[in-house]
Amino acid sequence: MSEHDDAGRGDESADGRESRGQRTRLALQNAALRLLEGDKSFSSLSLREVAREAGVVPTAFYRHFADMKELGLTLVDETMHTLRDALQAARAQSRENTLGDAVASLARQVQTQHLHFCFIARELYGGRSAMRQAIRHEIDLFVRELALDLSRHKETENWSAEDLQMMASMLINILIATAEQMLEAPTRRPQAENAVIETAEKQLRLIALAAPHWKSAGR
Amino acid sequence: MSEHDDAGRGDESADGRESRGQRTRLALQNAALRLLEGDKSFSSLSLREVAREAGVVPTAFYRHFADMKELGLTLVDETMHTLRDALQAARAQSRENTLGDAVASLARQVQTQHLHFCFIARELYGGRSAMRQAIRHEIDLFVRELALDLSRHKETENWSAEDLQMMASMLINILIATAEQMLEAPTRRPQAENAVIETAEKQLRLIALAAPHWKSAGR
Repeated sequence: MSEHDDAGRGDESADGRESRGQRTRLALQNAALRLLEGDKSFSSLSLREVAREAGVVPTAFYRHFADMKELGLTLVDETMHTLRDALQAARAQSRENTLGDAVASLARQVQTQHLHFCFIARELYGGRSAMRQAIRHEIDLFVRELALDLSRHKETENWSAEDLQMMASMLINILIATAEQMLEAPTRRPQAENAVIETAEKQLRLIALAAPHWKSAGR
Repeated sequence: MSEHDDAGRGDESADGRESRGQRTRLALQNAALRLLEGDKSFSSLSLREVAREAGVVPTAFYRHFADMKELGLTLVDETMHTLRDALQAARAQSRENTLGDAVASLARQVQTQHLHFCFIARELYGGRSAMRQAIRHEIDLFVRELALDLSRHKETENWSAEDLQMMASMLINILIATAEQMLEAPTRRPQAENAVIETAEKQLRLIALAAPHWKSAGR
């Protein structure tokens, strides 16, 4: 096994080598994401396959990741970053603008970060439990943050903590279902995607209509 | 390869053999479902593994299924049957009783048909596209039937077809998310399951509150 069949080790000091190493690392991550866009789940990917798709020899893989598990958890980290950004942006929009803007903001992120969202959708239900739990944990954090946002709204300020949580989880579930349906829409048909987005916007508006009529138990 | 290492062929006429064949077929289906309860996706299961779990030799597999793909599609059929029954029961409850009864009815089905629902949740997002499409198709049919139900309700009778569809898909998405969260709840902890069910019930009640306040465009 040659030590020099690919980009240099990340811990070497020469800048050129470092950035080449970085590039290979990214190439491996992107190769895995591309392979997952089709019908495969992460657990059925082989190290050899990922290396081949990235255009490097299998031994080069080990300079960047200890094993496939480490690559998988790195992808969870990366894609969770994307999910967090997308939900933060949607949340900011819903605070400052309309719910429609929030949905549109999420939709833009799903479109530009297509591979990341494919990975999340696949692994949230189909993946190994370590990944599933990492994703689920991130979503739970988000539900809690959104519940806090809601508690500052006039329509929901008197709700119990439990009911704010119930509302927040419903809103997040709608956003997740929307992202999933966008991913399933016939590839890149803007019409189909728009219909999904429009439906989600209506669903959020419908729920907003209910808020003033809800009474939390004992309040 | 022996022809007689397992239960008889399904097309033999002796009743004993036929039912033994039937039993092996079911054993293979159940073996696959059990293997999928863990972290595996169907596409990563091998024929050998399924046969071993079912306690038969690999050649016996071929008397019942042409290949793993045929077994997979049989499982989609079977589990879709379960899903249809569960949604039908929930729909009947929501017509005759409260929304809470509808959720409770679905929850009972998820509990008793745990393996079937694990399979559906896994394959709906993580599976091969043929299976994903089969499940998605079944859900779409259901959304349409539910939209028809809704059109007969007083609160929604003046809604546009598009808006009835929007409402129905939201209700079904909530039921699906509920089933998924029940499956993810710490194994068989009734408390965690109950919390999920209670939240879903509130979400449906909240949406029902909004219905009388919604105006379809142009109506």
